[in-house]
Amino acid sequence: MNSMTSVANAQQSSEGTSSRVHQFKLGNGLDVLVIPDHRAPVVTHMVWYRVGAADEPHGTSGIAHFLEHLMFKGTDKIASGEFSKIIARNGGQDNAFTSQDATVYHQRVAKDRLPIVMEMEADRMRNLKLAKKEVLTERDVILEERRSRVDNDPSSILSEQMMATLYSSHPYGTPVIGWEHEMAQLSREDALSFYKRFYAPNNAILIVAGDVTPQQVKKLATKIYGPIKREYSVGVRARVKEPAPAAPRRVTLKDPRTGKATFNRLYHAPSYITAEPGEAEALDLMMKILAGGSTSRLYNRLVVDDKIATSVGGWYSGNGRDYGRIGLYAIAAGKNSLTDVETALDKILREFVKKGATAKELERSKNAYIAEYVYGVDSQSTLARRYGWALVVGGSVKDVEEWPKRLEKVTLEDIKRVAKKYLLEKSSVTGLLMPGEKKPKTLTKAEKKQGKRG
Amino acid sequence: MNSMTSVANAQQSSEGTSSRVHQFKLGNGLDVLVIPDHRAPVVTHMVWYRVGAADEPHGTSGIAHFLEHLMFKGTDKIASGEFSKIIARNGGQDNAFTSQDATVYHQRVAKDRLPIVMEMEADRMRNLKLAKKEVLTERDVILEERRSRVDNDPSSILSEQMMATLYSSHPYGTPVIGWEHEMAQLSREDALSFYKRFYAPNNAILIVAGDVTPQQVKKLATKIYGPIKREYSVGVRARVKEPAPAAPRRVTLKDPRTGKATFNRLYHAPSYITAEPGEAEALDLMMKILAGGSTSRLYNRLVVDDKIATSVGGWYSGNGRDYGRIGLYAIAAGKNSLTDVETALDKILREFVKKGATAKELERSKNAYIAEYVYGVDSQSTLARRYGWALVVGGSVKDVEEWPKRLEKVTLEDIKRVAKKYLLEKSSVTGLLMPGEKKPKTLTKAEKKQGKRG
Repeated sequence: MNSMTSVANAQQSSEGTSSRVHQFKLGNGLDVLVIPDHRAPVVTHMVWYRVGAADEPHGTSGIAHFLEHLMFKGTDKIASGEFSKIIARNGGQDNAFTSQDATVYHQRVAKDRLPIVMEMEADRMRNLKLAKKEVLTERDVILEERRSRVDNDPSSILSEQMMATLYSSHPYGTPVIGWEHEMAQLSREDALSFYKRFYAPNNAILIVAGDVTPQQVKKLATKIYGPIKREYSVGVRARVKEPAPAAPRRVTLKDPRTGKATFNRLYHAPSYITAEPGEAEALDLMMKILAGGSTSRLYNRLVVDDKIATSVGGWYSGNGRDYGRIGLYAIAAGKNSLTDVETALDKILREFVKKGATAKELERSKNAYIAEYVYGVDSQSTLARRYGWALVVGGSVKDVEEWPKRLEKVTLEDIKRVAKKYLLEKSSVTGLLMPGEKKPKTLTKAEKKQGKRG
Repeated sequence: MNSMTSVANAQQSSEGTSSRVHQFKLGNGLDVLVIPDHRAPVVTHMVWYRVGAADEPHGTSGIAHFLEHLMFKGTDKIASGEFSKIIARNGGQDNAFTSQDATVYHQRVAKDRLPIVMEMEADRMRNLKLAKKEVLTERDVILEERRSRVDNDPSSILSEQMMATLYSSHPYGTPVIGWEHEMAQLSREDALSFYKRFYAPNNAILIVAGDVTPQQVKKLATKIYGPIKREYSVGVRARVKEPAPAAPRRVTLKDPRTGKATFNRLYHAPSYITAEPGEAEALDLMMKILAGGSTSRLYNRLVVDDKIATSVGGWYSGNGRDYGRIGLYAIAAGKNSLTDVETALDKILREFVKKGATAKELERSKNAYIAEYVYGVDSQSTLARRYGWALVVGGSVKDVEEWPKRLEKVTLEDIKRVAKKYLLEKSSVTGLLMPGEKKPKTLTKAEKKQGKRG
């Protein structure tokens, strides 16, 4: 039932890293990727589930992330809360993260401890035990996490509001951590039903990077993960689509805790997996040219020349399963208002859409990305994640390895075309963060009510 | 199995309208309301289904309204498209409408034709037949309806965008007509599964107003609707709640088809069924005082005194099952910008929140509403709808009939309190409609793409 393919890595690193990634699938549907790296006697073990916040049943926002926390409770074999302690006692480190499209558990251990880690991860793939009391205690933990990460941070609040404004229908508009009023209602049943539906070998990708051979990993994985039964309820990840954007939107947050007035902007854009061929690569390069670091257009003009902003930056987020995004931000300098910043920034964007980049800018941005790609190979974890992100949204090993080649092909015309196509006022959300007066308490109460009613 | 109650109407009209509304429930769960009105030998027959656009499965927006159209196709007894023709041949009129919370079918006929209408309505409650071809043809009809009602009307586009921005999670943010890309995918199966799940006697309210006695209606309804089986899949209408609003939002639509620059504003507010006692009544009065017609505060200040706007108005929408809304709009006069309008309007609102209304304003607004309530009794259809709207979201006959009494009780303090609680910048969406340049064609293409991708 197993098939094994081997794909040549396009990059050859000078540090002696293996250039071969080996991919195979177990009979129960588990995808396995082996990335040999013999520089040190350690391994990185990751399980990527093809499920994230965007797969949550409507009204139970936060359940994907909540379950990620609960996965560190016990099974019949592992006492509650012991998972990470066992890893630590074996000299390793472990952690996990949840995104809109993936939930990922990872450990780094000495290579001889790989079987221990695998046994534990395979065990909690299907045998999680949750006591009601533990669930309630952990719910307080995630609520506290929300308070400290979002509610105490005006820029996080604004970012959450901007995402909710950018996406009218699609679940990317719902925060991964969850809306507070829904988090407060999450139950053990919600967690278990999500777990049973999505945590299964045929919905997961195992990545082992490090001082192992594909043969060793195959033998171990077959023995340890192989016996886990396929879950037939795992279906197609069917998500609603966004309606076509019709008008630009704005969100303004005045908050007394805000230090400096900050301008933010989001634009709809496709992701690598949904873009036309070459578009996502051009978007990556475009954003590097416009807003990547202190050599970028926006930095040179707004910070160095005009001194309107003290800081400016931007990015293209292309790893989503359904959509990507373009983001920009700038902090107003001195007495400049956010309107000054916005006017100046939009003028530069309009010029860029009209005239595009220069050959030198394109060259420099390509070199910067290709250097990043090559240096990424130095980190076992970075390398493993690169493949994980591609595979978890439906991409392939080839997509990752041919990326530098595709990036090289991007022309000045391509940059101009994606700028014109995606830097559209109509499909944007502008977010302004401003220092503001303290709110009278009566208002806060009324607003809280709003979230609790219905 | 049947129970019958009779509730005294608080109002006694001088035209000889009956003051008694009779309510009973059939054994299969069908709620029946009889509103005798013997002024003319006609009857209004309505069936209110407790289902609307806000009950649609995620991703199938427009299906409630689409099904409303399809209900005019045939059954085994009624040839396709004959329903309205039969009503017309019998000298009657019929129509239907779909809202977020209700789908309503209504006919007006001579009283001796009531059994014919009842037979047909009862028949299509469970026996709808849909040919695939008919469904596809009708889908083109609703798509054309969307194009003419929304896409060709900038103010409708803006209104749709503002609602999508006001509601981050709750389905009220999805337009009743549907998002175009989802409407284009609606199938016969979507329609039938929605129909089977929600169209049943235990999910409906029958209202008969006119020249009939409760005894006559009870006999007819028991004979004609009584044999229809209860549908056990009809469940609680569980909808997600909105997160607490955290920052004001804005939508700007520039459209060359726009005649005059228009300012719009929405605020979150509770509905009659979700508000604290007395709040919804105070909101109704507040909006009458602020923005109801040419004697209102905003009209006097913005149109008459300052000549900043040529028109200004507003409303409180309180009939939603989950949430209500406050709305305001103003058309800029002469060379005034929308910023001028907004600044002046917000100044008046701030004053109002601080100082409230005058006794005279409150008195006048109460009188206006109570006159409307009394005059409403004159129209058989208005009267029937008043009860229908209350009952379909879970209210009662008593709620409707004691409304004038509750309205009378509202004090100046109540008005001030709801103004302070709900005219909150933070829970608002501002919409600006402006005449704009023609869009270059390349952009339109790119935007359309966005809606189709995913």
